[in-house]
Amino acid sequence: MKALWLENNQLQLRTDVPIPTPPPGEALVRVVRAGICNTDLELLRGYYPYTGILGHEFVGIVEQGPIELQNKRVVGEINAVCGECRFCRNGYPTHCENRTVLGIVNRNGTFAEYLTLPIKNLHSVPDNVPTDVATFTEPVAAALEIQQQVKITANDRVLVVGDGKLGQLVAQTLALTGCDLSVVGRHRQKLDYLAALGIETGFADMVRDRTFDLSVECTGNPEGFAIARRALRPRGTLVLKSTYAGHLTFDASSLVVDEITLIGSRCGPFPKALEIISQNKVNVNYLIQERYELENAIAAFDRAQQRGILKVLLEISADS
Amino acid sequence: MKALWLENNQLQLRTDVPIPTPPPGEALVRVVRAGICNTDLELLRGYYPYTGILGHEFVGIVEQGPIELQNKRVVGEINAVCGECRFCRNGYPTHCENRTVLGIVNRNGTFAEYLTLPIKNLHSVPDNVPTDVATFTEPVAAALEIQQQVKITANDRVLVVGDGKLGQLVAQTLALTGCDLSVVGRHRQKLDYLAALGIETGFADMVRDRTFDLSVECTGNPEGFAIARRALRPRGTLVLKSTYAGHLTFDASSLVVDEITLIGSRCGPFPKALEIISQNKVNVNYLIQERYELENAIAAFDRAQQRGILKVLLEISADS
Ligand SMILES: [Zn+2]
Ligand SMILES: [Zn+2]
Repeated sequence: MKALWLENNQLQLRTDVPIPTPPPGEALVRVVRAGICNTDLELLRGYYPYTGILGHEFVGIVEQGPIELQNKRVVGEINAVCGECRFCRNGYPTHCENRTVLGIVNRNGTFAEYLTLPIKNLHSVPDNVPTDVATFTEPVAAALEIQQQVKITANDRVLVVGDGKLGQLVAQTLALTGCDLSVVGRHRQKLDYLAALGIETGFADMVRDRTFDLSVECTGNPEGFAIARRALRPRGTLVLKSTYAGHLTFDASSLVVDEITLIGSRCGPFPKALEIISQNKVNVNYLIQERYELENAIAAFDRAQQRGILKVLLEISADS
Repeated sequence: MKALWLENNQLQLRTDVPIPTPPPGEALVRVVRAGICNTDLELLRGYYPYTGILGHEFVGIVEQGPIELQNKRVVGEINAVCGECRFCRNGYPTHCENRTVLGIVNRNGTFAEYLTLPIKNLHSVPDNVPTDVATFTEPVAAALEIQQQVKITANDRVLVVGDGKLGQLVAQTLALTGCDLSVVGRHRQKLDYLAALGIETGFADMVRDRTFDLSVECTGNPEGFAIARRALRPRGTLVLKSTYAGHLTFDASSLVVDEITLIGSRCGPFPKALEIISQNKVNVNYLIQERYELENAIAAFDRAQQRGILKVLLEISADS
C-alpha cells in the first residue's frame, strides 16, 4: 500500500508497505481522511525518535472488525494499551507503560491506505457528522482534556496563548464553559476567526499581569510560556498543552511564592469530543486550509510547515 | 533596642534601633524566642532584596494590644495584608498585592527585642505548649499547606526529597495523613531522626522511577527537583516547597506527556499548626541544635549556615 514513511528525519512516499494484518483484538481500518498535526511536524524535525508511518488524526472505514463496526466510519484513540501494567490497572490507561501510540510511538500511523488499531480504541462517527469534521475528533478531545483536569466556571478569567490549530480548538472548547475567555496570538487573521465566534482576542500586549485565573499555553515556545505565566494571579493555574523542543527554563521561586499550579495536559476523551462535534458546538471547517491526496503527502507536509497555515488534510480514500 | 539588621548582604548587630510604635490595628510584641530559617540565609545571600531586621519565626509576649492578648504568649502570621486589594477580596490574603512580610518584605522581623504585627495576625499559644516548641508554628503551618492544596489519602505513595529543617517538618506532617511515606536525603543522621519516628528513609538511589503519586521538593536545588520529578508516576503531583536560587531548567515536554501537576506551596494555616503542636503530633525538640542570645546573633547565623545543622534558636527575652 501507499504510505508516508518517516525514517532518519526524512519523509518518503512508499508504495511497498504491506497492508497490515490486524493482530487479535485489532481491526483493519481503511483510512479515508487524515489531518497533519504539529506533533507530526515535530517528529519530522526529530524532536522525538520515530520510524514508521506518521499521522494520528483520521477518519476511516472498518474493513475487518466486529460486525457492529463493519463498513462504518470510525475515529480512533491513539494510545494502544496493554491493560495489565500498573498504570492501566490504576486507571491511567493513556499512560500505559507498554503503550504504542498511533504514528508517534512504535505503531504505524494514519498517512497510509490502511491502519490497524485495537477495537476498543474505535468509536463510530455519528451519521450527521461530515468526515472532514470528524477528522478533528482527536485534537478536540485533547482540547477537552483541560476541562477534565481543571474545574472551570463562568467566574473564571481564562487566557489561551496561541492562535494556531491547537489554540483555536482549545479556545472554542473553553468558550463552551461560559468562562471569561481571552486569546492572544501573533496573527491578526487567525485571531479574527475566533473574534468572529465572539471570543475576545488580541496580541500579547493586551495581557495584564496577574489577572487571569487560568492560562493555557498552546504555542510550545518559551515566549508563550512567559506570557501564560505572567498572566496568572497568585494561586492561578497554568496548563501546558504543547510540547517543547528542548528544555524550558523558568523562575521556580516565583511559582512557590505565588503558589502557582502547572499542569501538563495531553490526550482527552473521544466520546465527549464526538458529542460536542455532533452537536455543532465547535466550528472546525474554517481551520481546513488545504487538501492533498496521499501521493502528494510530501507537498502537504511542506505546506503544513509554512508560517500561518492551519489544518492540512490528506484525502486518502472515499468515505463510503 | 537591639536588633540584627541586614543591609547590602551584611548583618550588623545594632543597638540603636528605636522600639517600634504599633500603628493602628497592630500590637507591640516583645520577642521571646526566634528561629533561623533557610529563607533568612537566602536573604543574607542576597537572593531577594531586603533591608531591615531579619526573622519571621517567633514566640513573643504582647505588651501593647487588645486586652485578651495582653501579656499572653503569641505567635504571628507573617503576611501583613491590606484587606482591600483584589487578592485580599477574592480570598487570597496571603497573596495581597500590598503585603508586607515579617522579616522578608518591607517589615522588620523577629531578631530584635520588639516587633509589631497586625492584631489579626496573632494567635495565642496554648498553655501546654512550651515556648521552644511554639517557635516552630510558622514552619509547621507551611508544611501543612501541602495538605490544604492536595488531597492526600492512606493510599497515596508520597516522597519527600530533603532531610533538612523543612523536609523534617514536611515529612512529620505528611505522616499524619497515614500515607505511604518515604523521605530521601543526603545525611544519614538527619534521616535517622525520621526513621526513629517510624518513617521510611533512604538516599536518592532508593527512589524507583515513576512509582510515587506525590513528591515534595524540600531541598531548593535542581538535583532535588530531578529526584522529585523522576519519582512520579504519570499524572502525579510535584509540590515545590522550597525556593530556588536563580532559575530552574526542566523538560516541559515530559510534564505534558506524563500530565504531571506542579504546585508551588508557601505559607500555611496557623490555627491548624497550633492544634497539631498542642496535641504533640509533631516532634520538634530534636530539631533544636543550638541556642544563642540576641547579642550573639551573628555567631548564630554562622552556625546556622554550617552543613548539617538543623534549627538554631535565638533566646531573646524571658517567656513570662
Ligand atoms: Zn498498560
Ligand atoms: Zn491586599
